[in-house]
Amino acid sequence: MNFNSKMKDIKNYEAGKPIELVVREFGIEPKDIIKLASNENPNGCSKKVQDGVSKIISKMALYPDDSMIALKSALSKRFDVGVSNVIIGSGSDQVIEFLIHAKANSESKILMNSITFAMYEIYAKHVGAEILRTSSQEHDLDEFYKIYKEEKPSIIFLCTPNNPTGDAIEATKLFEFLKKIDSDTLVVVDGAYMEYALVKDSSKEVKPKDLVEEFDNVIYLGTFSKAYGLGGMRVGYGVADAKIIKELYKLRPPFNITTLSLEAATIALGDEEFVNKSVVNNFNEMKRYEEFAKEQKIDIINSYTNFVTLCLNPNQISSVIADLLLKKGMIVRDLSSYGMNAIRVTVGTQEQNSRFFELASEIL
Amino acid sequence: MNFNSKMKDIKNYEAGKPIELVVREFGIEPKDIIKLASNENPNGCSKKVQDGVSKIISKMALYPDDSMIALKSALSKRFDVGVSNVIIGSGSDQVIEFLIHAKANSESKILMNSITFAMYEIYAKHVGAEILRTSSQEHDLDEFYKIYKEEKPSIIFLCTPNNPTGDAIEATKLFEFLKKIDSDTLVVVDGAYMEYALVKDSSKEVKPKDLVEEFDNVIYLGTFSKAYGLGGMRVGYGVADAKIIKELYKLRPPFNITTLSLEAATIALGDEEFVNKSVVNNFNEMKRYEEFAKEQKIDIINSYTNFVTLCLNPNQISSVIADLLLKKGMIVRDLSSYGMNAIRVTVGTQEQNSRFFELASEIL
Repeated sequence: MNFNSKMKDIKNYEAGKPIELVVREFGIEPKDIIKLASNENPNGCSKKVQDGVSKIISKMALYPDDSMIALKSALSKRFDVGVSNVIIGSGSDQVIEFLIHAKANSESKILMNSITFAMYEIYAKHVGAEILRTSSQEHDLDEFYKIYKEEKPSIIFLCTPNNPTGDAIEATKLFEFLKKIDSDTLVVVDGAYMEYALVKDSSKEVKPKDLVEEFDNVIYLGTFSKAYGLGGMRVGYGVADAKIIKELYKLRPPFNITTLSLEAATIALGDEEFVNKSVVNNFNEMKRYEEFAKEQKIDIINSYTNFVTLCLNPNQISSVIADLLLKKGMIVRDLSSYGMNAIRVTVGTQEQNSRFFELASEIL
Repeated sequence: MNFNSKMKDIKNYEAGKPIELVVREFGIEPKDIIKLASNENPNGCSKKVQDGVSKIISKMALYPDDSMIALKSALSKRFDVGVSNVIIGSGSDQVIEFLIHAKANSESKILMNSITFAMYEIYAKHVGAEILRTSSQEHDLDEFYKIYKEEKPSIIFLCTPNNPTGDAIEATKLFEFLKKIDSDTLVVVDGAYMEYALVKDSSKEVKPKDLVEEFDNVIYLGTFSKAYGLGGMRVGYGVADAKIIKELYKLRPPFNITTLSLEAATIALGDEEFVNKSVVNNFNEMKRYEEFAKEQKIDIINSYTNFVTLCLNPNQISSVIADLLLKKGMIVRDLSSYGMNAIRVTVGTQEQNSRFFELASEIL
């Protein structure tokens, strides 16, 4: 059977065995496996959320309220924007999917940072768009502007703080950049880790309200997967001018998040204490990673997120190091596929991090 | 901002207020509102599923196992097919989305029944494909074949049992039809309500295994939203030749179902008792609808699903009837948008159905 020609350019994602199963093959007990690879919240999720979801567990048979009015209202209050400025996705991933399908096609160009969140490229390939990348590791907005002027991309992705490197753009510089972009280019400001960044350094904080008030071509993305501790529930959102949201809504499938996810996210938004505690714990523990890097004489990128990126020395091959850690039950992310000799480690609990330092000291 | 030209042909879905809120505006207490509009399982979901999900509620922070090996293995055992013949979607809707994006584009034609599941058309419009429909209310496979020969569609959708009418295709006739279709046309056999049909009349049963063994251009769709009582958890699946599944996998976003949904569906598949009980209850209660229709001298379509379609008499306008029921707290589906003067009513619990008969008797 023949498929669309664009399908040839999409690589097949081979979902292998769960990594926990692989580790068990090395004779390691499940209780001894530590996963610091997916930037999940090591504090789990809010007790209030768990209690709230438990109460409606018998409602799994019922479709969610497709207007999502409770969650959209809560987000609109949180960000001081209108309900018509908000769209909910199955993770912010799905909002990325909507906006690429709405704005780009096989004639389009999409501009993104040299190293950034992998889903931008994956969805861009779904529509056969051409992918343009800057050359510098951190977001260099001058380089972005230069390429923008030359190539006129349909969409520009800015990820701040950036994944998988952890660095963040100064908010004032971001706004200066946005002012220079014409209104027919859609700019995406992906703030998946913003809850961490704004606590560490308020100069990095980008407020969705400011974007919506000033620009009709910019969308802010957020997620419940990180600071809110709901990675497994798949809830993200976009905040933008109502005209953009209305277009994206055309591509939203009905019931795109589950009944339990809707409840979980709505309650999570009301438990600021949990988020604050998660962020404070995160940066306290991150200091230990900074000390560890200093001791080991390896570079660590100044991170505004819940992970650290350890840039290894030339004699330490990241894929080898990640593999050696794996064999000891410690799962981290090797960044060699991003062209970096580095590993990305989620900042875990105190105990998990201690174990990482112990194992990594033996290996590095 | 300009969007893709195809977006102009996609109607905006205005998610209004939840219908329960609308009903409350008529002064009706939440406890008195009965929703028989979405074909949810009136028995809720399996107690085993509820217990199993409750046990992992603290894991909401963790991404699901993206290999989905437990659920895929369980489905492969259930249907006696390989794991490589199975793909999981966020509802079978998402598998429909994958296959339309993989196979069709703005040059394609997609053939479906005159009256059928609305998502086929919605996703077809996302790629700008031309939609072809038969003229008869029930699936007329001779007419399907005639249009297929003339128009050479890329995809043919067959929904059996069909939604929103409830009728089903004879399995032998379906296989005769499939044998006449060339291998470059993708045929979708949507069996969302098959668990009901096969109990009522085994001649309607289409087994995924038989399709996979005989055809490399046919995909079977199933869901956990109906007989398995997990409408709110968004889990569906496709079963097909491994080559088709491999292509669809290219379009599957990572983590497309939630951690709790994965657990719920896996446990649900093991609780056959719950499904059997749901189906038996359904057809017992359906007899009461058949009697009611006879008493009221209105037509009822012989249904192989968990809903009934009541074809009203010309002096009974379906939109008016549905509205009058709504004002009394009874939510059903008016089918006038499908060009039918009919209402679709989910077969509810004994008590819910009694209330429907009571209210409908007053109105009809």
